[in-house]
Amino acid sequence: MRVDINCDMGESFGAYEIGADEEVLPHVTSANIACGFHGGDPTVMRKTVAAAAKLGVAVGAHPGLPDLAGFGRRAMQVTPDEVYDLLIYQVGALLGFAKAQGVKLTHVKPHGALYNMAAAQPALADAIARAVRDVDAGLVLFGLAGSHLVKAAERAGLPSASEAFADRNYLHDGALVPRSRPDAMVTDVDEAVRRAVRMVREGVVPDVEGEEIAIRADTICVHGDGPDAVPLARGLRAGLEAAGIRVVAPGA
Amino acid sequence: MRVDINCDMGESFGAYEIGADEEVLPHVTSANIACGFHGGDPTVMRKTVAAAAKLGVAVGAHPGLPDLAGFGRRAMQVTPDEVYDLLIYQVGALLGFAKAQGVKLTHVKPHGALYNMAAAQPALADAIARAVRDVDAGLVLFGLAGSHLVKAAERAGLPSASEAFADRNYLHDGALVPRSRPDAMVTDVDEAVRRAVRMVREGVVPDVEGEEIAIRADTICVHGDGPDAVPLARGLRAGLEAAGIRVVAPGA
Amino acid sequence: MRVDINCDMGESFGAYEIGADEEVLPHVTSANIACGFHGGDPTVMRKTVAAAAKLGVAVGAHPGLPDLAGFGRRAMQVTPDEVYDLLIYQVGALLGFAKAQGVKLTHVKPHGALYNMAAAQPALADAIARAVRDVDAGLVLFGLAGSHLVKAAERAGLPSASEAFADRNYLHDGALVPRSRPDAMVTDVDEAVRRAVRMVREGVVPDVEGEEIAIRADTICVHGDGPDAVPLARGLRAGLEAAGIRVVAPGA
Amino acid sequence: MRVDINCDMGESFGAYEIGADEEVLPHVTSANIACGFHGGDPTVMRKTVAAAAKLGVAVGAHPGLPDLAGFGRRAMQVTPDEVYDLLIYQVGALLGFAKAQGVKLTHVKPHGALYNMAAAQPALADAIARAVRDVDAGLVLFGLAGSHLVKAAERAGLPSASEAFADRNYLHDGALVPRSRPDAMVTDVDEAVRRAVRMVREGVVPDVEGEEIAIRADTICVHGDGPDAVPLARGLRAGLEAAGIRVVAPGA
Repeated sequence: MRVDINCDMGESFGAYEIGADEEVLPHVTSANIACGFHGGDPTVMRKTVAAAAKLGVAVGAHPGLPDLAGFGRRAMQVTPDEVYDLLIYQVGALLGFAKAQGVKLTHVKPHGALYNMAAAQPALADAIARAVRDVDAGLVLFGLAGSHLVKAAERAGLPSASEAFADRNYLHDGALVPRSRPDAMVTDVDEAVRRAVRMVREGVVPDVEGEEIAIRADTICVHGDGPDAVPLARGLRAGLEAAGIRVVAPGA
Repeated sequence: MRVDINCDMGESFGAYEIGADEEVLPHVTSANIACGFHGGDPTVMRKTVAAAAKLGVAVGAHPGLPDLAGFGRRAMQVTPDEVYDLLIYQVGALLGFAKAQGVKLTHVKPHGALYNMAAAQPALADAIARAVRDVDAGLVLFGLAGSHLVKAAERAGLPSASEAFADRNYLHDGALVPRSRPDAMVTDVDEAVRRAVRMVREGVVPDVEGEEIAIRADTICVHGDGPDAVPLARGLRAGLEAAGIRVVAPGA
Repeated sequence: MRVDINCDMGESFGAYEIGADEEVLPHVTSANIACGFHGGDPTVMRKTVAAAAKLGVAVGAHPGLPDLAGFGRRAMQVTPDEVYDLLIYQVGALLGFAKAQGVKLTHVKPHGALYNMAAAQPALADAIARAVRDVDAGLVLFGLAGSHLVKAAERAGLPSASEAFADRNYLHDGALVPRSRPDAMVTDVDEAVRRAVRMVREGVVPDVEGEEIAIRADTICVHGDGPDAVPLARGLRAGLEAAGIRVVAPGA
Repeated sequence: MRVDINCDMGESFGAYEIGADEEVLPHVTSANIACGFHGGDPTVMRKTVAAAAKLGVAVGAHPGLPDLAGFGRRAMQVTPDEVYDLLIYQVGALLGFAKAQGVKLTHVKPHGALYNMAAAQPALADAIARAVRDVDAGLVLFGLAGSHLVKAAERAGLPSASEAFADRNYLHDGALVPRSRPDAMVTDVDEAVRRAVRMVREGVVPDVEGEEIAIRADTICVHGDGPDAVPLARGLRAGLEAAGIRVVAPGA
C-alpha cells in the first residue's frame, strides 16, 4: 500500500513571499512548482527545484492561468487551444530548470481555477493532457479523483494520479464542498490524518453527511499556503507511515 | 564558404501583430523566436515554431528582458543571477514547443537591450552562456561579432555564431553606429547585399569612415520588423547564393 | 434629432500598434480611450487624449479586464468589488491625463468582455456605475441599449448613453447576434448607414429575421480595429448629417 | 518646529502581502501609497486610502517603475517622456480612489529606483515634477534632501518636502551610504530617534565618519517593509514629540 503527499510550492514572486515551502518540503514526496503565471518567477523556480531535488522530493510543474493579480483563482474563458499553449509554455519553462540541474521532471498538476475548470470541462482536460503528453509522455498528470482531468490523462495515454484532500469535505457525488461553505474544511489535523489513512487503505471517505463514498487517493494534497500546512504535512506523513502505508511519489 | 541568415520572429502578442514573419521566413535559415518576455506569447510561439520547421528553417530562442511595454529595448539593472534565470525560463519555454512538435532547438540569440548589455558586460555574457549550456550544451549562441557574448560562449564550451549586420554601419572598433545617429543604417538593399558578400568572402567591412575593418560573419541578421525586411531578406539570400556562398544554419 | 458616434481608441501598446485612430478620429464625436489593462499604455493615453481634444472629440475612458494577452475579450470571474476597483483605477488614470492637458473627461464605456458581462449581470453593472459616479457623477456611462448597464446608470443617478451598432445584426430580443454566427455583421457600409439613420429617426432596426424591433440609439459604435473602420465612420457621419441628424457627443 | 513622518504603504499585490501597514499607520503622518506598477493593486489602493484617511494620515501617491518582478528596485533606461507618462498614469489612478472616497491627495513620493534615478538625473527629476504639477499644482513632491528631485520641484513651482532617513547612514556629501555596505543602516532605534531629533532641531546629522553635515528634514522616512518598521515608527513619533517637535504632514 502506498500513497504520495504533494504540495504546491514556489509561488513566491519577486519581493513577495508566500507559503512555508522550506518547512513543508521535508514531509512531502511531490512538489508542484509554480511556473510564473499565477505565481512563481524564474529565480523562485530555480531555487525551488534545487530545494526539492536536494531532499529527494519529486519535481513537478504547477501551471496556472495567466492571472498573477488573481493568483490563478479566477476562472477565465480560455479556449482549449489557449490552454494547450499555456501548458506547453509553463511545463517547458520548468523543464528548463530541471534540465539545467540534472533533475527529472516527474509530474504536472494544474493550479487553482485551471484545475477546477479541467475537472469539469472535458475539452479543457483533454487540452491539458495532450500538452503534457506532447512535452513528455512519461509525466504523471495529477487531477481531482474521479474528474475529467484524470479521464483525459487516460484518453491521452498518460499516467495519472488521482488526488484526494484530507482536509476538505466531500459532497456525496465526490466533488469538494465549495470553500464558500462553512463546512468546506476539515480543520482538525488528527481527523484529517484519519481520513487520509482510510482513503488509502479502504478507498472510502465519509461525505459531508457522514455517508461513506468511494474515493481513489494516489496522492494527497497539502496546501502550502494554508495556516496548518506544516502540522498537516507532518501529521499526514507520520500517520500514514504509522499505518504501514509507504509514502512515495507516483513514479518512484 | 557558408553563412547563415537569421531573423527575429514571433514577436506578436495576443491581438497585436508585429513583423512580416510569413514573408521573411522563406528567405532565412535561422528563426529566433521570441519567448514571451519582450514579445511573443504561447500561441504565437507554437505557430512560429511550426511555420519555421515546415520550411526547414532552424528554430532558436530569442529571450529578452521582462519588459513587454518597452519591447525589451530598455536597459535594466539586472544581476547575472537574474539573467541566468531569465534565460533558463525562456529557453525552456520554447524548448517545450519544440519538443511538442518533434523539432530540434538549435540556437539562442538574446534580444534587444539584453543583447547589447551582454555584448559589453562580461558577467552578463557569462550568465547567458552558462544558462544556455545548462539547458543544452549543443545549442549555438548567437552574439555580436567580437563581443563579450561570443567570448563567453567560448569560455562556457558552447558553440557560437558571430553575428554581422548587412544594413548597419560599423564604427572603427567594430561596434555598431548607434541608432540615434543618422548614418546608423545602410538603407540601400543592394549596398547591404554587397557588404554581406564581402563580410563572408573577405572577412572585412568598410567602417563608417570608409576604412576596412575585420569582421567575422557566421550569421547575418535581418530585422523582421524593419520596413525593408522582406526585400533585404530576399536580396541577401539571392546575392549570397549568386556569389557562391552556401546559406545554411550554423548547425546544419 | 441628435446622435453620437463613438470609437474605441488608444489600444496600441508599446511597440505594438492597433487601430486606425488617426483616420477615424475626424469622423467621430466621442473617443473611448483604453486605460492600460486590455490595451493602451501611459504614452498612448497621453497622445490619444491630445489627438481627440485637438479635434474637439469628447474624451472618455475605456476600461477593461486585466488581460492584455487576451485584449480584454475573455470573460473572467471577477467580483463586483474587484470590478469597482478596476474601474476607479482605470478611470482615474485617464483622468490624470485629461487633467494634465486641461481636457474634460466626459464619459466611460467598458471594453470587451467587461462590457458584455455588465450588460448581462446586474451586480457587475451596478459596480461599474457606482465606480464611475464615485469618481465623477457628471460622467456619462455608455452601455448596450436595453442592457443592465444602462439600468445601473439610472439606479446610480448617472447620465447614460444607450449604444447601438450599425454594423451588427440584432436578435429579436435586442441582443447582438454572436460574432460566431456568419450573419453577425452588416458588412455593407451603405446598409449600415441606412440602419443607423432609421435607429435615430424612428427608434427601430430590423432584427436578423427582418422584423422591426425597438432600439434606442444615443450613440453609435465604430470598431476602430475593424477593416471597415474608416469608411464606416466617414459614411455614418456623412449619412447621419445628410439625414438632418446632428452628430454630437452626449454631453455637448 | 515641525516634521512629517512618512511611510511607503499599500505595496501588497493580490494574494501577496508585504509590509506592516496597519501597525505602522497610527504612528505616521503621511502615507505614500503604491500605485500598481512596482507594487499595489486597485483593491489594495482603495483599502489603503481608506485606512489612512480614517486615521487622518495624509494620502500621497508612491509611483514606481513598471517592474513588479523587481519591486521597482531595478534601474531602467527610461526617457523623461516615459517617466512623465508613468507619473501621470499612477498619480491619476490613486487620485481616482481619493476622489471616490472624498479624500484629498496631498503628495507624491517616487519609489525605489525611480526615486534614486530622479535624485541624480535632472531630466528625470524635471519630468516627475512637471507630471505632478500638471495633475495638481498643490501636490507636495517628496525627494531626497539636497537632490535634483527637490530642485526640480522648485523649478516647476511645486511645493516640496526634503526627505531624511533616521535609520540610514550618510556619506559626507549628503548621499546615503549604499545598502551594499555593512554600515548602511542605523540599526539601533534609540540612536535613529536621536538622529531624527537633531536633524529637525539643528539641521545636522553625523556622517558615516562622525563629522556633522547639514541636512534638511521636512519629512522622515520609515520603511514599511523593514523588520523594525513598527518600533522605529513608534519611537520616532514619541521621541520627536517628546522633544517638542510637532509631527504633522507638510500640507497640514
